[in-house]
Amino acid sequence: MFEIIKKSKETRARKGIMRTAHGEVNTPVFMPVATQGTVKTVSSEELKKIGTHLFVSNAYHLYLRPGAKLINSAGGLHKYINWDRSILTDSGGFQVYSLSTLRKITKEGVKFQSHIDGSSHLFTPESVMDLQMELGSDIMMCFDECVPYPSTYEYAKNSMEMTIDWAKRCKKQFVESKTERVNKKQFLFGIVQGSTYLDLRKESALRTIEIDFDGYALGGLAVGEPADITNEIVVNTAPLLPEDKPRYAMGVGTPEELWAYIENGIDVFDCVLPSRNGRNGQALTFSGKVNIRNAQYSNDFGPLDEGCSCPVCTEYSRSFIHHLFRSGELLSLRLLTLHNLFFMLKLINLISTSIDEDNFLSQKEKFFDKYKGNNR
Amino acid sequence: MFEIIKKSKETRARKGIMRTAHGEVNTPVFMPVATQGTVKTVSSEELKKIGTHLFVSNAYHLYLRPGAKLINSAGGLHKYINWDRSILTDSGGFQVYSLSTLRKITKEGVKFQSHIDGSSHLFTPESVMDLQMELGSDIMMCFDECVPYPSTYEYAKNSMEMTIDWAKRCKKQFVESKTERVNKKQFLFGIVQGSTYLDLRKESALRTIEIDFDGYALGGLAVGEPADITNEIVVNTAPLLPEDKPRYAMGVGTPEELWAYIENGIDVFDCVLPSRNGRNGQALTFSGKVNIRNAQYSNDFGPLDEGCSCPVCTEYSRSFIHHLFRSGELLSLRLLTLHNLFFMLKLINLISTSIDEDNFLSQKEKFFDKYKGNNR
Repeated sequence: MFEIIKKSKETRARKGIMRTAHGEVNTPVFMPVATQGTVKTVSSEELKKIGTHLFVSNAYHLYLRPGAKLINSAGGLHKYINWDRSILTDSGGFQVYSLSTLRKITKEGVKFQSHIDGSSHLFTPESVMDLQMELGSDIMMCFDECVPYPSTYEYAKNSMEMTIDWAKRCKKQFVESKTERVNKKQFLFGIVQGSTYLDLRKESALRTIEIDFDGYALGGLAVGEPADITNEIVVNTAPLLPEDKPRYAMGVGTPEELWAYIENGIDVFDCVLPSRNGRNGQALTFSGKVNIRNAQYSNDFGPLDEGCSCPVCTEYSRSFIHHLFRSGELLSLRLLTLHNLFFMLKLINLISTSIDEDNFLSQKEKFFDKYKGNNR
Repeated sequence: MFEIIKKSKETRARKGIMRTAHGEVNTPVFMPVATQGTVKTVSSEELKKIGTHLFVSNAYHLYLRPGAKLINSAGGLHKYINWDRSILTDSGGFQVYSLSTLRKITKEGVKFQSHIDGSSHLFTPESVMDLQMELGSDIMMCFDECVPYPSTYEYAKNSMEMTIDWAKRCKKQFVESKTERVNKKQFLFGIVQGSTYLDLRKESALRTIEIDFDGYALGGLAVGEPADITNEIVVNTAPLLPEDKPRYAMGVGTPEELWAYIENGIDVFDCVLPSRNGRNGQALTFSGKVNIRNAQYSNDFGPLDEGCSCPVCTEYSRSFIHHLFRSGELLSLRLLTLHNLFFMLKLINLISTSIDEDNFLSQKEKFFDKYKGNNR
């Protein structure tokens, strides 16, 4: 599914293509987050217009609402949500721990109560594979335990062992599955855990690779640990993953992280930053962040980002978006989100070009000279 | 500015064209409501895509936020909000009474406190003309008093007298104005008041016509009076207005009202129904209203309205919009609003065609056979 088309001469960065049943996805890639089957406030048409080829949705959320059977009967997730490009689904490992109540983890799986209505459910590696096969996602994720930060060494080790065991069961279920699939060409990624302990991360990586997946993710990042610890994990673990498979840093993707982790050979990212910050009134620009609520923008008739060619910057001014935001108009949330997503795609393009042209490090420096942000 | 191109042989209905500085507007026309410079949840591009040529904005709201000077310095309202088709602005007469606090009405004008920050302001007929000229709206409305329902005969009569006096001052200010205009070709409509008293309505109509405006509106409708009283006022007052000028029923425009009042010679409508009901989960369809929250739509994979060619119905299912709405996704509000606006435009087209083909009454009956709604 994955082909590397260019390696940086300066760093571990590389460019590639992932080929799914729903088209080609150039890497490095930033995935907008469509938790409930929609990237908040924006339409499929808009996502396409700005050049999105892959987003991440969430099996836990879709399982609880509207339900996998319903989505399957609609012809799969792509048809249901009106998106004919690629979809990666997270297994819900993270959500089971962060959202549900009264969860009980056993070797069999996780019993939990829905965060929506309190109803009881059981997720097992097998059931989560069936779920993602029913949805028809292009890239499925193994069911894992995402341990909190901080965790003791012992807890992290035991959990890592269990996640390895679950990964084997996921692979088996996937290979032997008789689930009715709307998408015959699905891929499955393994997830490396091990909390902040580098030896556990290493062991997790090597043993996950042994099981053999289509791609590998670093999980358990951005769960509250300081940025330098995230960095330490990624920098030390990424090189252990196979060169010829895509590498995905889960829940990670600020501009700082994109540069840092692409430099270390990561290919795939997802982060709520562009949409969540947009809904909070923040625009990402190549000159740093713009808080559109601020009074200084009330009579600023320029675009959100000077020189930006997105559908928002070519049509609307900072002043008008400031007015909309201050007036509580929902349109402002959408415009800010759409611009921010475009910014991320443009940033990825910039980084990709620097890999092509072997000037990654100087482009990175140039970017931060202007950006000087701190988005985490 | 106005040309009648076809009169119904069966009724008082007619088709016409209003020509403004921002293009041609076919009548009858339904204006979406863009109170704060935006039709809630939808973009200019979407409004154009579905065929909107005129919407109504509000001088009171724009005066308070972001302010007319700011809009003027941006090059006028059209540029500020990114809309190059026609705009009608209501003078704010209605909002001064319905939203502001501690208002005091004198012959000079109205002192009121902002509903946003409590600051004190004075609106006079002159200042409201200057305001609308600064905004650069294509069609401006006279400043009037919109009396509540019910009002005593005496109150309604005195108020009507004052509104006539204000209308004269509006006309004078408009004609003699030295306000810097970003739109040189503005039109001014007079407003007929008189509450529920037909003799006052008649007097108001005749004396307003005497002042001579580019068009005439019926104000003080849809302020809480029963539907049959609204109907009585329109049916009796509309025929008093000049044949060769556009006639506007303010704040009115349910499907029932469109058929009834176009039949009586009304050309222009505005109503929050399609957008407000959309935000409440209601879709307007030619088979009646659809409450998308209802469980029955959870697995209904058809479009909001069978056979509808709007950008929502061609892309999304009832089931998915139900899911979005239940999940609190803002996209659902936008999709419902956009569909509902398209429905209104399609309904207007249907009515226009029936005027062309002289089958207004049979088409009306056919429409309600299927629709059977009660939208007020």
